[in-house]
Amino acid sequence: MSARIDMGINSVMETPQAVTKTSFRNAMSSFAGAVNIVTTDGAHGRAGFTATAVCAVTDSPPTLLVCINRESSAAPAFLGNNTLCVNTVGPAHHELAMLFGGKTSTEERFAAGDFVSSAAGYLVLTEAVVSFGCLITKRQRMGTHDVMFCEVTEIVDRFGSQVSVWCRRKLHELTL
Amino acid sequence: MSARIDMGINSVMETPQAVTKTSFRNAMSSFAGAVNIVTTDGAHGRAGFTATAVCAVTDSPPTLLVCINRESSAAPAFLGNNTLCVNTVGPAHHELAMLFGGKTSTEERFAAGDFVSSAAGYLVLTEAVVSFGCLITKRQRMGTHDVMFCEVTEIVDRFGSQVSVWCRRKLHELTL
Repeated sequence: MSARIDMGINSVMETPQAVTKTSFRNAMSSFAGAVNIVTTDGAHGRAGFTATAVCAVTDSPPTLLVCINRESSAAPAFLGNNTLCVNTVGPAHHELAMLFGGKTSTEERFAAGDFVSSAAGYLVLTEAVVSFGCLITKRQRMGTHDVMFCEVTEIVDRFGSQVSVWCRRKLHELTL
Repeated sequence: MSARIDMGINSVMETPQAVTKTSFRNAMSSFAGAVNIVTTDGAHGRAGFTATAVCAVTDSPPTLLVCINRESSAAPAFLGNNTLCVNTVGPAHHELAMLFGGKTSTEERFAAGDFVSSAAGYLVLTEAVVSFGCLITKRQRMGTHDVMFCEVTEIVDRFGSQVSVWCRRKLHELTL
């Protein structure tokens, strides 16, 4: 139990911090999220990166969003192609997720994983927890990033797989 | 090790499922996410709901997004006020998170938790893992939902708190 004396509403506020890039990034490090290897393939080339900034938006129509740094090496292919695949990963892909989040070349990234092209041309990671093949239907520029709104047109759901979570700058296996 | 015989790229694709509301929701249930009690207060009233559809966007300027169903009881206050507070919660707030995700009245929701108003008027949940006070700077309509883009103007970071994750339709405590 806390020894803090509760003096009523408005009286027990912790001191807010100044909002800076650093304090925002530190605070966001406690924000747990699924780990995703996001891929694209098409006329503008093949690319992939690891992202936690992925979020469901609506089921009508089935839509998710992915944030991408416009300065990243993967951005031109994602901004050129109109499709992507979100592969949510579990413990079997921890090393691969770190590789896709680092500075390795595109060729080395894809050589290290077992990807297959679906009939629609999505690059699906074999044995991911779940894969969402998507058409990018809208983009929203927001500071350094683009938010890509994506309509889901293909799902491979390997329900029952072990799930990973990124939190406090580490990968964790979620005990379900 | 798997007994599966790898017959080369393109040959080992699991059969994709038809994309329906149900298959999308089922697939998204394996997508682990932080649990947040999102609040608003102002001229258009007080409201709050539990959300996992929250995502960091960029640190320049510090920005996150929150998705809200326009048909939800909480929506009018969020769409009227131009501020909100994202309170990311841990195991101490599992019951409260379920309450804010259910059908309980606004009055009962807030009576069940220890909220304080910050100087800027944000409704901050005492002892949340981290709280982000935000100005809503842009909205994007997407199907049934609005995506609210939020510039963070206040952070209360209780680094070291235990963290919760929503996955497969249950709350889990993340072992860090």
